[in-house]
Amino acid sequence: MTISLNNLGIVHRTIQRADPAAVALLSKFGVATLHEAMGRVGLMKTYMRPIYKGARMCGTAVTVLLQPGDNWMLHVAAEQIKPGDVVVAACTTDNMDGFFGDLLATSFKARGAHGLIIDGGVRDVDTLEEMDFPVFSRAINAKGTVKGTLGSVNIPIVCAGAQVMPGDVVVADVDGVVIIPAAVAGEVAARAQAREDNEGAKRDVFASGVLGLDYYKMREGLEKAGLKYID
Amino acid sequence: MTISLNNLGIVHRTIQRADPAAVALLSKFGVATLHEAMGRVGLMKTYMRPIYKGARMCGTAVTVLLQPGDNWMLHVAAEQIKPGDVVVAACTTDNMDGFFGDLLATSFKARGAHGLIIDGGVRDVDTLEEMDFPVFSRAINAKGTVKGTLGSVNIPIVCAGAQVMPGDVVVADVDGVVIIPAAVAGEVAARAQAREDNEGAKRDVFASGVLGLDYYKMREGLEKAGLKYID
Amino acid sequence: MTISLNNLGIVHRTIQRADPAAVALLSKFGVATLHEAMGRVGLMKTYMRPIYKGARMCGTAVTVLLQPGDNWMLHVAAEQIKPGDVVVAACTTDNMDGFFGDLLATSFKARGAHGLIIDGGVRDVDTLEEMDFPVFSRAINAKGTVKGTLGSVNIPIVCAGAQVMPGDVVVADVDGVVIIPAAVAGEVAARAQAREDNEGAKRDVFASGVLGLDYYKMREGLEKAGLKYID
Amino acid sequence: MTISLNNLGIVHRTIQRADPAAVALLSKFGVATLHEAMGRVGLMKTYMRPIYKGARMCGTAVTVLLQPGDNWMLHVAAEQIKPGDVVVAACTTDNMDGFFGDLLATSFKARGAHGLIIDGGVRDVDTLEEMDFPVFSRAINAKGTVKGTLGSVNIPIVCAGAQVMPGDVVVADVDGVVIIPAAVAGEVAARAQAREDNEGAKRDVFASGVLGLDYYKMREGLEKAGLKYID
Amino acid sequence: MTISLNNLGIVHRTIQRADPAAVALLSKFGVATLHEAMGRVGLMKTYMRPIYKGARMCGTAVTVLLQPGDNWMLHVAAEQIKPGDVVVAACTTDNMDGFFGDLLATSFKARGAHGLIIDGGVRDVDTLEEMDFPVFSRAINAKGTVKGTLGSVNIPIVCAGAQVMPGDVVVADVDGVVIIPAAVAGEVAARAQAREDNEGAKRDVFASGVLGLDYYKMREGLEKAGLKYID
Amino acid sequence: MTISLNNLGIVHRTIQRADPAAVALLSKFGVATLHEAMGRVGLMKTYMRPIYKGARMCGTAVTVLLQPGDNWMLHVAAEQIKPGDVVVAACTTDNMDGFFGDLLATSFKARGAHGLIIDGGVRDVDTLEEMDFPVFSRAINAKGTVKGTLGSVNIPIVCAGAQVMPGDVVVADVDGVVIIPAAVAGEVAARAQAREDNEGAKRDVFASGVLGLDYYKMREGLEKAGLKYID
Repeated sequence: MTISLNNLGIVHRTIQRADPAAVALLSKFGVATLHEAMGRVGLMKTYMRPIYKGARMCGTAVTVLLQPGDNWMLHVAAEQIKPGDVVVAACTTDNMDGFFGDLLATSFKARGAHGLIIDGGVRDVDTLEEMDFPVFSRAINAKGTVKGTLGSVNIPIVCAGAQVMPGDVVVADVDGVVIIPAAVAGEVAARAQAREDNEGAKRDVFASGVLGLDYYKMREGLEKAGLKYID
Repeated sequence: MTISLNNLGIVHRTIQRADPAAVALLSKFGVATLHEAMGRVGLMKTYMRPIYKGARMCGTAVTVLLQPGDNWMLHVAAEQIKPGDVVVAACTTDNMDGFFGDLLATSFKARGAHGLIIDGGVRDVDTLEEMDFPVFSRAINAKGTVKGTLGSVNIPIVCAGAQVMPGDVVVADVDGVVIIPAAVAGEVAARAQAREDNEGAKRDVFASGVLGLDYYKMREGLEKAGLKYID
Repeated sequence: MTISLNNLGIVHRTIQRADPAAVALLSKFGVATLHEAMGRVGLMKTYMRPIYKGARMCGTAVTVLLQPGDNWMLHVAAEQIKPGDVVVAACTTDNMDGFFGDLLATSFKARGAHGLIIDGGVRDVDTLEEMDFPVFSRAINAKGTVKGTLGSVNIPIVCAGAQVMPGDVVVADVDGVVIIPAAVAGEVAARAQAREDNEGAKRDVFASGVLGLDYYKMREGLEKAGLKYID
Repeated sequence: MTISLNNLGIVHRTIQRADPAAVALLSKFGVATLHEAMGRVGLMKTYMRPIYKGARMCGTAVTVLLQPGDNWMLHVAAEQIKPGDVVVAACTTDNMDGFFGDLLATSFKARGAHGLIIDGGVRDVDTLEEMDFPVFSRAINAKGTVKGTLGSVNIPIVCAGAQVMPGDVVVADVDGVVIIPAAVAGEVAARAQAREDNEGAKRDVFASGVLGLDYYKMREGLEKAGLKYID
Repeated sequence: MTISLNNLGIVHRTIQRADPAAVALLSKFGVATLHEAMGRVGLMKTYMRPIYKGARMCGTAVTVLLQPGDNWMLHVAAEQIKPGDVVVAACTTDNMDGFFGDLLATSFKARGAHGLIIDGGVRDVDTLEEMDFPVFSRAINAKGTVKGTLGSVNIPIVCAGAQVMPGDVVVADVDGVVIIPAAVAGEVAARAQAREDNEGAKRDVFASGVLGLDYYKMREGLEKAGLKYID
Repeated sequence: MTISLNNLGIVHRTIQRADPAAVALLSKFGVATLHEAMGRVGLMKTYMRPIYKGARMCGTAVTVLLQPGDNWMLHVAAEQIKPGDVVVAACTTDNMDGFFGDLLATSFKARGAHGLIIDGGVRDVDTLEEMDFPVFSRAINAKGTVKGTLGSVNIPIVCAGAQVMPGDVVVADVDGVVIIPAAVAGEVAARAQAREDNEGAKRDVFASGVLGLDYYKMREGLEKAGLKYID
């Protein structure tokens, strides 16, 4: 990943999107499972929340670096969207203005976008819910923005604490937002499937009253660590 | 607006409410549209959120300045409510106690109040939702308050970062809370209407796949600003 | 309550749970009413929120002290749960990792737990809602935890600003979370009942348009405090 | 105070500054004393802090409304500064970019400014300290800003929760920032003097071991309120 | 510790202070060392900071439970101070008003207090520094308070996340604030001494270039855990 | 930059440090200047602050990814330090424990480290100041950590919102922390020098009373944007 002196004012038109088959597989899993399958990296900060109940998405990242109070680059990004993409927008500073609303959502949807992840604010939330256009954001904010300063599209960004490369897979549900690098998408899907198979079995075990203490054979480790039971 | 040495311990019984016809017009628009029509001023901070999904309101402000941990002035304010008013309450300091619950809501509703905006906490949220009494607040908090120190009613206040004069129009929906000065209520309604007419047309354009880049003729400006496309 | 040098690495198997009859009575009241009945102490901080709409619980506390990024003690706690208990988990530091998910919930539910209060994060929120297992937490977080460092179970803890002793009654609803010491559970239930009887009557009074100013005879006090009405 | 539809893009060249004699008197008092003399209104939020130890200022307000990430209006404001003024800058949204550094400070100082109060970020803090140019801000931030969008100068603003009119007196010290409306500057100075005379005497009393309980005759009130002493 | 229905409106005049000899020993150690010696419990939250550089204190706790915006109980507490005490004040809710200033400090100092720990705001910070009266607080705030609602003195409290019993030892320095229960004061002092002796030796070892990896024999554990070195 | 499935449990022993000559040049500039020279990217969040007045540093990054409440990897990192390095530590989650104190500082200093940047807490702050070992951190916290879970050393990390690659140049002063990619270190130094030469001249101009409005020829742009002056 290059943070160069030329990082602002650039649009990469050609990006390496993750393999569509892998994306399709990943879309079946929840974020908690995928994060485990990833080896516990790649999560965004917990302040990123769905703007309406039930919002969730899976797609390949078109990245955007915004300037504070300015959504010009979201218009530029719209043109780079291919069906199945998710726009992931960071800002050069903490800013919660309403960068995005129903008109941009209409445009994004027309291009085939699967949703928006934005480390900032959005507005027209009722309409976005009616449109069933999922958004995860840091804030809801009626305040609009100007179009005056260049950022970039499809450069590597840091969004809500996570590194995002153009083409990475983005999965978001009620538990959070996880980024899966394009190169490991297939492997993560396989690991997630293995994990899920395993979890289903465990659920029945625990429902029957078996304790994790016994199932995971934790008692010896706890005793060795010095745990004392007092009656 | 006067911040005088006599600002505490005062109730203004006579206030200049915005023209009811203008208020009726304003009630048809969303907060994002009104904020644009206002010239992008007058929004409260984004921490002001509806206490239940679907809460929204429009009315003329009865303002209250509270003391921390003390809701005496909300009782004083109740008497000043006229049908169609919204009570807007600030506090002399950051305080999230539960200043307001179902009994005060019953009183406010009996007086014809359209809702409450409070830079503090409220409680009895389930009952408030059942009563369909909309509230936007900074917090939900079961903690009650005392009645011991004077604040004021119907003086100019700063609530969640916005200036509010008694009689101003208050509109709140999922996107936030906006204050429209009484004197410009009619003009803002007219501008909002113009804006909305315009937006409806745009929505169809964008849904058809036309980009904002072309519709707003942004390409030349972007090029002039130095945007570079890389394949 | 003892904060001793032996506070970590301990599990108390025998705790004094509040009288089940008192718990049953307390379960009928809302948190705001109980907090008043308690004399306005015992509330957790307002950042503790239900993870889904409608989540609420009442039960006796099994307390847990967690280490950051480590949920080992939740497994240890599972074994100490009796039907009707609520697990109340604090951490030795501020940490919002996802300590708890659907598998532990399955275990807790199998033991008869009525819910979880955790000053940290949880995940698998959709599944928890489907299971109807209520949780109040500080965060939702897909990030999992390890099992490596000892905390304790059933020692006195501070959770979200409230003191909690094992066996205390925990009541949580949309207004917040309140802790009622086991020894006063019956008395608090009685006071809450008295308060509620009283409130029902008041609701009708206020709905009829009578003001709190008159009903509570506040006018004299306000005048004495120096309140001035200006026309 | 007017929040009109013409609030952005305006510079008022003529403002009514507080009486210089009153300002001179006010400069002798601390913020805590002045806030009391004001009747406990007019304080900014506590997040406004001096950028170096010992920074303090007193002067008449030249107000600025900034746009996020944009310090154009600080350049416009520089021309409006008269000797003894303090620039007070708010932003249309929460934004902590570094709007101000040593070059603007050099300009402001050349015009006779007594300091800057900014609800945002500043940079070049070491140089500002060497220059002895006092600043109270919400953040320190190396990030610079652009010059592209209009705000306003010398309109009424809300800065860090306080209403500020052009020409008001601004006093800042380690305890915080207080705004004294121009019209009451003299009266506040007189009250502050009375208060300070009074406090000097009290300090000796308390140093001798007399308790506030006795000096303020609080014992009866406490007993009446129900305070119980337990041995 | 009892959280009873009678928790408000009480002053305990007789408390069990920690052994003065143990307190004297504890005063020689830093907070980080004491926290380790305590078994890593008893720390307040990190938002508690000294109000001036070099502030530090050690003494026995006189506890205070305040009401928001009200410092009445600090006056009541003054009478309960014995030489060597530290006043530890919590509030029934989050509130950062300026509860404490130079006059109360004069009184506290005249009674022999060693300092103040307050989960709230203080003012007159410059004077407090001149008086060399150490304070650790959550905020600095010029805003004063009223005297109208009862709290309590010398009951168990939760202050900034830590449980404090009257008579406990309080130690505060730049690293934070730690509470040492009276009953274990002597033992903690002994452990702290052992720890410090040990650390002095280690400092020389590490200064000579020996790595913790070797000194603590971590290499085997790291390898076992699976750490991989890549050239 | 690779976020792979093997990101935890790895130590890269060989990293490409920035050219020492470029680092030496960069050490002469302040962070605000370097951030501008970088094209306004690469800054950490403003919550990263020096732990004592005057702390500043410049060096090449040895990166560390920590687990919450666990400083094992700082010991592993110590061995990888070469003279002139700065250790830059992030955590897999938000955690403000005291990961670092005087013993590790002694070790780091013995290896020739120029300082520590940590998105977490540190302790022994007085000793660190005496040792003149500069640290920028998110918090000061006496709470210690365990050594039980693997993170990594010298992998790409996100620290306080900034991307950091092993070997990048880190510069920190009172204005913040900036990361300069190794590959552009020389170019940034050259641009910073040009900028500084330019600024010195401007300082004299502005000190003489010339306004930025005239010096930067802003008047025409402001007029074009619609700025109105009102007398």
